[in-house]
Amino acid sequence: MQRALLFDVFGTVVDWRGGVIRELQAFGACHGIEADWPAFADDWRGLYQPSMEDVRSGRRPFTILDTLHRESLDTLLKREGIATVGEEAIDDLNRAWHRLDPWPDSVEGLTRLKRNHVIASLSNGNIALLVDMAKHGGLPWDAVLGAETAGAYKPDPRAYLRTAEQLGLAPGECMMVAAHNGDLEAAKSVGFKTAFIRRPGEHGPGQTIDLEPTGAWDFAGDSMIALADALG
Amino acid sequence: MQRALLFDVFGTVVDWRGGVIRELQAFGACHGIEADWPAFADDWRGLYQPSMEDVRSGRRPFTILDTLHRESLDTLLKREGIATVGEEAIDDLNRAWHRLDPWPDSVEGLTRLKRNHVIASLSNGNIALLVDMAKHGGLPWDAVLGAETAGAYKPDPRAYLRTAEQLGLAPGECMMVAAHNGDLEAAKSVGFKTAFIRRPGEHGPGQTIDLEPTGAWDFAGDSMIALADALG
Repeated sequence: MQRALLFDVFGTVVDWRGGVIRELQAFGACHGIEADWPAFADDWRGLYQPSMEDVRSGRRPFTILDTLHRESLDTLLKREGIATVGEEAIDDLNRAWHRLDPWPDSVEGLTRLKRNHVIASLSNGNIALLVDMAKHGGLPWDAVLGAETAGAYKPDPRAYLRTAEQLGLAPGECMMVAAHNGDLEAAKSVGFKTAFIRRPGEHGPGQTIDLEPTGAWDFAGDSMIALADALG
Repeated sequence: MQRALLFDVFGTVVDWRGGVIRELQAFGACHGIEADWPAFADDWRGLYQPSMEDVRSGRRPFTILDTLHRESLDTLLKREGIATVGEEAIDDLNRAWHRLDPWPDSVEGLTRLKRNHVIASLSNGNIALLVDMAKHGGLPWDAVLGAETAGAYKPDPRAYLRTAEQLGLAPGECMMVAAHNGDLEAAKSVGFKTAFIRRPGEHGPGQTIDLEPTGAWDFAGDSMIALADALG
């Protein structure tokens, strides 16, 4: 019996791509800059996994995602030759990730799941990012946990194990909920239960990955509401 | 303008003494043990500050409060000659601190304050304790923060400063809310705003400390509802 449900956030609970594209377009309009903003959003997200690799490997001390996002953003702005924008506007753009909207089913599903379970993030996002996002979108977390509280980025096993320990639970009392098979694979390998949520629009119209569950997860479905129906 | 309100929990948000006495009495009734349970509760809490001192001084690595509470409990059970009770019952008794009831005004006040502010614990309690307590009493935290997330026990300045940093805020954007003048003094010294809540029943009928504010705090009042009225 899972006592806590631990959620991946980017892509699973919120639509990062739609939100980041919207913020980039507003940034461009405000500063008179034209660019392929959907491609820029994909490139920004594309630097996400590589940016965490130095931390995962131990070459760099734990560094919060806001800082990694900012380094990636600076790289891309430089590549695009965007140099005329002030620090305040770039800092605000970097916090686009704090203002992502939930998928339409997320708040209703989480609210139902909260009745009978502890619901918490287990995200690579940092605390400030996740708290701001929850206020923005009305996500009813019992606790905001993840990389910053564990001191390790998923899929490092320590991210999952330390989160379970902080909740006072055995791994088998925790269920990881994610739209990404790799996240569930890592969670399962340390003893978590697993739930796959299909998010075929996460990467836009051309999505080719994570369209279907690739492992023997304990649940697979199309929304948080379906998960609430299944867990009762 | 305070963007986040950070709450002391034991005594400020919940009635630890009433809850612990109730659990001790039930434990005694269940196991046929007679003792002065109100005095036992006061002694248990009396070991609270000394138990954290080894961590604050650096003599001991950071250790969560559940563990410190358990060590204190073992000391008191031994002193009382209570040796016939099994591990499971003692572990359950130790988690009395996870099941404390909110003061009557806490849930209504926090719910109102949450509309316009980030509300989070800044407690010496550990994450599991605070999450269980929030589920038990319906405390609507945006985030569960404190000693375990900061790696330092109040009134160590790092407990306050790291919590502000994790929320992405300057100290002056944070307000500490507590029933204890010492907590507010430490918070003010690192730049927090301060709110004193009178809890004249925290220590039972003979309370002599923290009956009135002793510093120039930004707010002083009798309940979370009064704080919500003041902050608008």
